Amino acid sequence: MAQKFEIQILGCGSALPTRKHFPTCQVVNLRDKLILIDCGEGAQLQWRYTGLNWQRITHILLSHAHGDHVFGLPGLLSTMGLLGRTQPLFIHGPSNLQTYLEFMKAHFFADIDYEIQFHAIDTTQHALIFQDRSMEIWSLPLKHRLPCCGYLIKEKPEQRHIRREMIDFYGIPLWAINNIKAGQDWTTAEGEIIPNNLLTTPPSPVRSYAYCSDTSPVMELTKWCEGVDLMYHEATYAETESSLAVKYSHSTTRQAAQIAKEAHAKRLLIGHYSSRYENENLLLQEAQEVFSDTILAHEGLRITP
Amino acid sequence: MAQKFEIQILGCGSALPTRKHFPTCQVVNLRDKLILIDCGEGAQLQWRYTGLNWQRITHILLSHAHGDHVFGLPGLLSTMGLLGRTQPLFIHGPSNLQTYLEFMKAHFFADIDYEIQFHAIDTTQHALIFQDRSMEIWSLPLKHRLPCCGYLIKEKPEQRHIRREMIDFYGIPLWAINNIKAGQDWTTAEGEIIPNNLLTTPPSPVRSYAYCSDTSPVMELTKWCEGVDLMYHEATYAETESSLAVKYSHSTTRQAAQIAKEAHAKRLLIGHYSSRYENENLLLQEAQEVFSDTILAHEGLRITP
Repeated sequence: MAQKFEIQILGCGSALPTRKHFPTCQVVNLRDKLILIDCGEGAQLQWRYTGLNWQRITHILLSHAHGDHVFGLPGLLSTMGLLGRTQPLFIHGPSNLQTYLEFMKAHFFADIDYEIQFHAIDTTQHALIFQDRSMEIWSLPLKHRLPCCGYLIKEKPEQRHIRREMIDFYGIPLWAINNIKAGQDWTTAEGEIIPNNLLTTPPSPVRSYAYCSDTSPVMELTKWCEGVDLMYHEATYAETESSLAVKYSHSTTRQAAQIAKEAHAKRLLIGHYSSRYENENLLLQEAQEVFSDTILAHEGLRITP
Repeated sequence: MAQKFEIQILGCGSALPTRKHFPTCQVVNLRDKLILIDCGEGAQLQWRYTGLNWQRITHILLSHAHGDHVFGLPGLLSTMGLLGRTQPLFIHGPSNLQTYLEFMKAHFFADIDYEIQFHAIDTTQHALIFQDRSMEIWSLPLKHRLPCCGYLIKEKPEQRHIRREMIDFYGIPLWAINNIKAGQDWTTAEGEIIPNNLLTTPPSPVRSYAYCSDTSPVMELTKWCEGVDLMYHEATYAETESSLAVKYSHSTTRQAAQIAKEAHAKRLLIGHYSSRYENENLLLQEAQEVFSDTILAHEGLRITP
């Protein structure tokens, strides 16, 4: 069975608050490591409904320095301090967010017992910004009214899956199992070489998630996110408001869908809805006309790439 | 009929978020002028449920520079800008909040079209900090881990109520009505003086609201708030946690109730509950043992002094 890789939506509204939406925040659970993407106001309040453990947040990825993406950060960071966090937290984002973080820490939670390490992202480069055994995180340059950056999270291959009956058949001891999971063949006491593909099945295919918000359409996303399993792309406006999308450097439904289509994404998740839309089905319908595998984000949604 | 004077609770939790409570925020509606008291994270999200008009907020009163009382401010201020506010906004609070406001404005909403006037409160003085035709606002020095200040809002007397039948009887013209409401007698064409108390009934009694949070017990409050109609006093802890109340400069239920009792308050509203209490009825019960007219605050509560 594939390991955990789940995105949970804590907020998918835009700047003006509505009764339906919180501002942008998502949590990615990849093999029980939690990565927070953006942190709009109320993120820590929404967190309480996830049932997830605050202290498992290892990284926070921030897209840009607009309030609806970062005003929840001070509350979340100070609460983690109050709850006794000691392990370091890595925050990635455009460099202009560092001053904000440092100011808020100095004025409101200077006494926390954990280290906040800020890593400035070059928002003009598509680059690998982090990797460990489970994942790679890549930056995705976006076009907004100030430096802005999306993120592509790619699973790394798991180990091969053991075929229990073959292990038993050849009487392979426990100490050898990890090597076999890693792809090694097995040599019996008689010198017979049992090829690994008789002993294991291939690992589950690796999956990927792209987060693209806030942005005008960036055609390079289709190349950087080629074949992505799930793409979140902002669709702030319906087509009738396309002039506003241009004015405020946002995307329309069809633009988001066109990016997903040309990237050969498996599925598209749209969000960051302008507060003007009472009923978002219009947005869904417009996007689906271009890319049928489109889903509307909503608070509480849990989705696997 | 008495004019509007209503307090609405937007949040009455403390620093750690719970599923039940938002951090502290209240709105006072006094004759359709709105005064916000404290502005914890999510205040602008809660505002949407009040049905009140953002632009009628004339003053924001801040108690102290702890996140659970001010992290909702940047979102609220920038949203009012996005919604086209032009009239100035007056923010009162301890002087250390001015840097915070200025930093956030410069970094996140420098382009708003309204002026924010910050007035630093001397948190050691009980003083009149604002008055207009409808109200007086007084500061209430509190004792917390940093400069902290409560507020006493007193209605000013309304005009006297006209006795319609007497006005008709004496054929008093429209132009004279305002003077009569203000207390003047009426002289008939024959020179007869009709005393004002035949023409009017007294105005409704003036009401008052005291906001006392966060604080250790401050005995002077009983003098400053003598006879107050409604006192909000924090009751972060039950009696069993009284050592924590001392440690963190908060009050217990009984301490809050004792202050209300000695101030001869008509009613006490408690809030700022520690997140440890699943069921706040224990807090209510403890307070009521000292002061029976105690009410538990909860989000959405609307109460008239």
